[in-house]
Formats: sequence, C-alpha cells, structure tokens
Amino acid sequence: MYRIGIDVGGTGIQSGLVDEKGNILQKVSIPTRLDLSFEDQIAALAESLRNLISVSGVTEDDIHSIGIGIPGIADQTTGIVIKCTNMNWHFLPLRAELQKWINKPVYIDNDANVAALAESVAGVSAGTDSSVFITIGTGIGSGIIINGKIWSGAHGVGGELGHTIIRLDGDECTCGNHGCLERYCSANAIIRMAREKVASVPDTLIMKKAEGDPAKINAKIIFDSARENDPLAVEVFNYYIACVSQAIANVINFFDPEIIVLGGGVSKAGDFLLDAIHREFPQYVLFNSLPLPKVVLATLGADAGIIGAAMLG
Amino acid sequence: MYRIGIDVGGTGIQSGLVDEKGNILQKVSIPTRLDLSFEDQIAALAESLRNLISVSGVTEDDIHSIGIGIPGIADQTTGIVIKCTNMNWHFLPLRAELQKWINKPVYIDNDANVAALAESVAGVSAGTDSSVFITIGTGIGSGIIINGKIWSGAHGVGGELGHTIIRLDGDECTCGNHGCLERYCSANAIIRMAREKVASVPDTLIMKKAEGDPAKINAKIIFDSARENDPLAVEVFNYYIACVSQAIANVINFFDPEIIVLGGGVSKAGDFLLDAIHREFPQYVLFNSLPLPKVVLATLGADAGIIGAAMLG
Repeated sequence: MYRIGIDVGGTGIQSGLVDEKGNILQKVSIPTRLDLSFEDQIAALAESLRNLISVSGVTEDDIHSIGIGIPGIADQTTGIVIKCTNMNWHFLPLRAELQKWINKPVYIDNDANVAALAESVAGVSAGTDSSVFITIGTGIGSGIIINGKIWSGAHGVGGELGHTIIRLDGDECTCGNHGCLERYCSANAIIRMAREKVASVPDTLIMKKAEGDPAKINAKIIFDSARENDPLAVEVFNYYIACVSQAIANVINFFDPEIIVLGGGVSKAGDFLLDAIHREFPQYVLFNSLPLPKVVLATLGADAGIIGAAMLG
Repeated sequence: MYRIGIDVGGTGIQSGLVDEKGNILQKVSIPTRLDLSFEDQIAALAESLRNLISVSGVTEDDIHSIGIGIPGIADQTTGIVIKCTNMNWHFLPLRAELQKWINKPVYIDNDANVAALAESVAGVSAGTDSSVFITIGTGIGSGIIINGKIWSGAHGVGGELGHTIIRLDGDECTCGNHGCLERYCSANAIIRMAREKVASVPDTLIMKKAEGDPAKINAKIIFDSARENDPLAVEVFNYYIACVSQAIANVINFFDPEIIVLGGGVSKAGDFLLDAIHREFPQYVLFNSLPLPKVVLATLGADAGIIGAAMLG
C-alpha cells in the first residue's frame, strides 16, 4: 500500500506518493490559486492527485490514505479546517470536499506538526521517543512528538511556540499581542534587527551585499556577512543567536524533549548557525550540568511536508 | 497495601501513610536540620517513618513503597539527588541511604511534579489525561502530567516553567539568567512591583496595611488592597495578572494541556485571582476562538506533597 501526502502552501500545493518507509516515489504540484473558490481549488487538487496516481502506475485501490499538511489548524475529528489564513480557508470541510472526488481516509494537520512527524519517522529524529521541531522562516512554527505521535494538545491549539511571549511588553506581533517569540527569532526578526542597525551604521558589508538598499537585506546576506567577520553583522548575528538559544532553552526548561530539530529557511545557514547555537543555549538551561537534548538541523528539507502528511494516516 | 509519601521542605519533612485512593490516614513531621549530616538527617527521617508505621497500627509488611518529593531534581534510575539547594543535597544517594533503614522501593521526584501528580490522581485534575500544575509561591515551579504520568522530560530537566524566559534582557534572576518567568509571576514578583510603586506613591492602602514599612508588604496585603479598590494596588494587581496570564498562555500556545492547575501560596487569593486570570489569559492564546484548557485552583493544598509522593510508587 502507498500513501499520498499533500503539502499545502501559499504559492503551491505539492503532492507525493509515499511508500511505507517514507520514501517519495512520485511528486506533482499545482499552483495555489486564491482566485478560485474553495470547491474549485479542491477539484483542481483532486485532479492533480489522479494524475499522481496515474503517472505512478498504481491504482486508487493501492492508496491507503491521504494526509494533508496545512499552514493553519484543523479539527482532526471532523476534518474541517478551522483557520488557514494564507489560503483564506476558515471553517471549511476540507476532508469532505476532497472525499467527493477520492473516497479515501483523509487526515489533516498543521504543517509544522507534519514536518515534526516526518523527521521523527524518516529524518534526523527517527528512533527518538520525544522531539520538538522548530521551523524558523518568515515566522516560527513548531511541532511536538511524544511517543512517536504528534502532540497538538488537548484542544489542538498547541505547538505554537512562535506565539509564546519571550519579551513581556515587547514589539507588537501580527497576531496582535506583544513580544511573541517569532518577533525575535524568525528570519524577519534578524532582518529587522539588521535594518535598524544599518540605519545608523551604514558602513557595513551587509549594505554592500544589499547594494546599498536596506530593503534588499535578507537573512542570508546577514549570515554571510557575519561569516566574513563584518563587525555589525557579527553583532546582529550574536544577538539573534542569543534570542534563538533562549527560545530553545525555553523548550528544554519546560518540556525537555529527547531532541530538538531546527528546520525552515534559516536552518539553511547550516553549521555556522548550529555551532553558534550549541555554544550559546546551555547557559540558559537551569540544570545544565546534566545531559541536555540534542539540537540538530532537519534533514528532509521541503520533502518533510509531503512525507509527514503521508504518515498522518 | 499502603504507601508512604514524604514531602521534603526547607523547614520540615512531613510524611504520611496514604491508602490506594490517595487518602492520608496518618501524618508525622520532623524539622529540617541543616546542621545534621545527610546520613543523620536520613536516620532521623527513618525513625519518624517507623513512628508513622507504629502509630498507624500497620507493619512494614503493609507498606508497598516510599515516595519522596524534593525541592530539586533526582535521577529516577539511581535514586541519587542531583540538586536540592534548600537541603544542601548535591549528588547524594537518598534512595540507598533510606533503604539502609527501611528496605522498600523508594521513588524520588521534584515537589512540583509530585503535586501535579497528586492533583491529577486525587485532586482537581483527577480524570484528565494531560495537565500542567503551576505552583506560584516565592518562586514558580511546575509539573507536567501526560497520560496520567509525570513528564519530567527526556533528561529529567523539564517542568521548570519558572526559568523559561518571558522577558528577553529582563531582570536578573537568582539562576543567573535574565528575564525568567518567576521574576514576573511569583509572590516575590508582585511584592517587588508594589515596593517599586510605593517608593514614588506612598499614599496607598498597601502602605497603611504594611504599617508604613515597605519591607512588610506581602502578596496578601497587595491582593487585599486591590480587592478594596485602592488605585495603586489595582494597578500593580492588574499588571501582575497580565504577566501570570501570559505565562499561562505560553503553556497553552506551546503545549495545550487539558487543564492547568494553579497552586502555591499565591493561589490562596482564590476566586479574586482566578476570575481576573480568566478574564485576561484568552487574549494571549493564538487560537482563542476554540475551546481552551480549563484554568483552576489546586484543591489538595499542602497535602499534595505527601499524596503525590505516595503515588510515585
């Protein structure tokens, strides 16, 4: 039997045929079309799934289940998407709508949860009992795995590390609260920190790489400049690492998983980022003379969305 | 069969004989004596346990196990206390030392974990699958229960909500880090907030109740003054409630347990505190249009330490 995993994103919807071991055998993708109605978007998705099945040389009878990772939350019992801002889906019956076209069990979960599951089944945290996956991109998402299963909380509202408060009365977040962790630990956060600094100290490698335009500063430019020992970039990088390390220590001090996996766009900075975090985070853990969780980089990359979704079944 | 639960504290060590349902049948206590050696302190404890057994009219054969809650952490496998600052116990073989006197299985865990277990077995969170107990006193402790069992983390260093960072670059904590949650949410925190305010606005009911001496301000005085609508007390109280509510929301946004139980000295402020928290915390939860964890007051009080310790076995 095979499973289908679907990774719903703001620009595209990728689907894959996945075997029992978590290998992707075939992939298809369609663009996300916010101009379509929900029903038409799902009809287009169903058509792409039929293509996927057809090009894979299997039949619908070979499909065990369909899993969908969404950048939002869903009611696991009813299969209704409760909130998925990027897709403009609010209280919509995703499972029922898809089952009109393909009558298979359909499972839906948050994309960070799904990536956490993928890494714990077929990625860097495979074989561990408990893990926390933190995806560091434009924002911050997280997923908790306990005893091999996604823990999305007793009411399905957990796993939102990005919206825990890490600075009381801090900067306003897009969610309306102040001081959310993603305001200090996301890619957007380090970009904002750099832009604030270059306003008063424009003579920096960061600005050279950004062609003199602060709007062109991105996380990679900052990391690259820090790697080249540009003093301002190093200052921004070090503060950002302190913030991310305190976020990681918060997870350890409260929950202490076996392993913490870092994914998302920022994790592409690789060992330069990870080594700095390894030097920094233990000082923020209360009982840091004991063995601590491993902190590692995700290994499945963008495929985690498809693999993890397939594993929901 | 009966179990013995032991609650180790900085001023006294209380022990109780507990039945299978979590009822305390008999209690004894001895003073904590920091002037004694570890061995002599445990010998005194063992003697008090023999008294407990004797006055209860049972024999050692009726005792299933002994559980000990400590204000610190222990290695569950070896029974060695790793760190217990109040008792000055560091890397000491508590289980082995006690078993020299009474040869029963001995279990040791952190006191907040033990209280969390007690409430989930015989208290306000009985019947729930997941709960987080937060004890708000001089400091902040916490315990996590998942599927009826204490979750102290993969390395035993979890459950330290009080030392998660809630204000980056905030006030220095006794642990050496800055901005720890207990600096903003403990009894000490609200007392400090009030003392800072009365320095510039001494004309407040708080100062009347404290007989004009800021050193005499305690949490009860502040709560009582707020209850009587003293403007300064209301201001301090409201800010404190905002801090505690954000701490609670952090637990929900990340972990989302079925129920959150508030214990410790501050919880004695009762419904006045709880009603204010209920009004405040949902705004800090990301998905707050969904059902949220119940937030309730602990019901077992000081007995939670003995009951939960007994339940460790």
